Amino acid sequence: MARKTSDSTVRRLSRYLRRLRKLDAQDRKVVSSRELAETTGTTAAQVRKDLSHFGSFGKRGQGYSVGDLRVHLEEILGLDHRWTVAVLGIGKIGSALLGYGYFTERGFDIAAAFDSDPSKIGSELGGVRIQPLNALEEAFREHRISIAIIATPVEAAQDAASRAVSAGARAILNFAPIKLSLPEGVALREMDVTLELEGLCYLVTEASTPADGPE
Amino acid sequence: MARKTSDSTVRRLSRYLRRLRKLDAQDRKVVSSRELAETTGTTAAQVRKDLSHFGSFGKRGQGYSVGDLRVHLEEILGLDHRWTVAVLGIGKIGSALLGYGYFTERGFDIAAAFDSDPSKIGSELGGVRIQPLNALEEAFREHRISIAIIATPVEAAQDAASRAVSAGARAILNFAPIKLSLPEGVALREMDVTLELEGLCYLVTEASTPADGPE
Repeated sequence: MARKTSDSTVRRLSRYLRRLRKLDAQDRKVVSSRELAETTGTTAAQVRKDLSHFGSFGKRGQGYSVGDLRVHLEEILGLDHRWTVAVLGIGKIGSALLGYGYFTERGFDIAAAFDSDPSKIGSELGGVRIQPLNALEEAFREHRISIAIIATPVEAAQDAASRAVSAGARAILNFAPIKLSLPEGVALREMDVTLELEGLCYLVTEASTPADGPE
Repeated sequence: MARKTSDSTVRRLSRYLRRLRKLDAQDRKVVSSRELAETTGTTAAQVRKDLSHFGSFGKRGQGYSVGDLRVHLEEILGLDHRWTVAVLGIGKIGSALLGYGYFTERGFDIAAAFDSDPSKIGSELGGVRIQPLNALEEAFREHRISIAIIATPVEAAQDAASRAVSAGARAILNFAPIKLSLPEGVALREMDVTLELEGLCYLVTEASTPADGPE
């Protein structure tokens, strides 16, 4: 099994898998690297390179078998089974997540939601009842939750994440604009709006800077 | 000026800049690559490599000048001036963005917000009045908006993005779970929760797969 695959490669693999699932649902049997590239915003050469890392799936000149490649990518990405998720912090972001319809069809079940605000506790959103933080450990155990989404205010984020990890979370998706400190072996991804905006500023600035001219 | 800098390098540069701004506010004069690395979650070697791409800022054994490096990174990232942003679609995500306090201090001004729901139009959120979509072109011109955040439902996202680009947006931050088709030269970043969750699944799966054992 390939190791040290970059985040951007994994993102592309996810996109290929989405496309393959759609094609599979349409009963398509074969797909070319060119088609996979076009529908996921990359190049055919990149598709072939990405997939070659994980073994040879395609037959030269014949494209990839949709069903086989789908199964392989599901195994590689760990998406051949469902994942149970908890949301910590039910403000605007947390509510949006609970109301978001796409998780179930993508293999994610939100099993629990937590907030410290007594006025929110007990109410239900997207079919999930909001619980107090002191119910966290039991809920993580009961539902075997492995992924925690941190959507608390920034000052509560580190505590929430640490608590989720102690309770068994092996991966954290962090929406709070703070660098979390986590034990080794816990996977972390960040949803940081200003970081993405800053990346866009760089791209716009770079595009409007003459390549060889003076700065 | 270096070209083709990867998204992950740009993200790290943003993180270095954040740290430098904090240190600068504390009147710190010098910072080591090790300290920059620790506070941004990378290694000292990576810091030195990233910064060497953009010219030599550090003096061997003396660390980097906080003020100089800050100014250089702000120029490189295009963050030496403010950026004007519009939000299209004021549902839960859009509302969260308008209520988010960190944009102003990071150099982003949300100048306009748009929705198609008549019941929302005219109301104010985070000091921004929600306008109908047919006011978009004038608002983009008036406020010289260069970045559009798409937070509409998925079925409205492509139209919203195309309209923003026609009105002058040079960069799109997309929250809708759909691959937008944009003209060449328009920068795009995506905030896709399920893509990040899938990336976490890969990391967790990889970590629990024996390196050399059978799959």
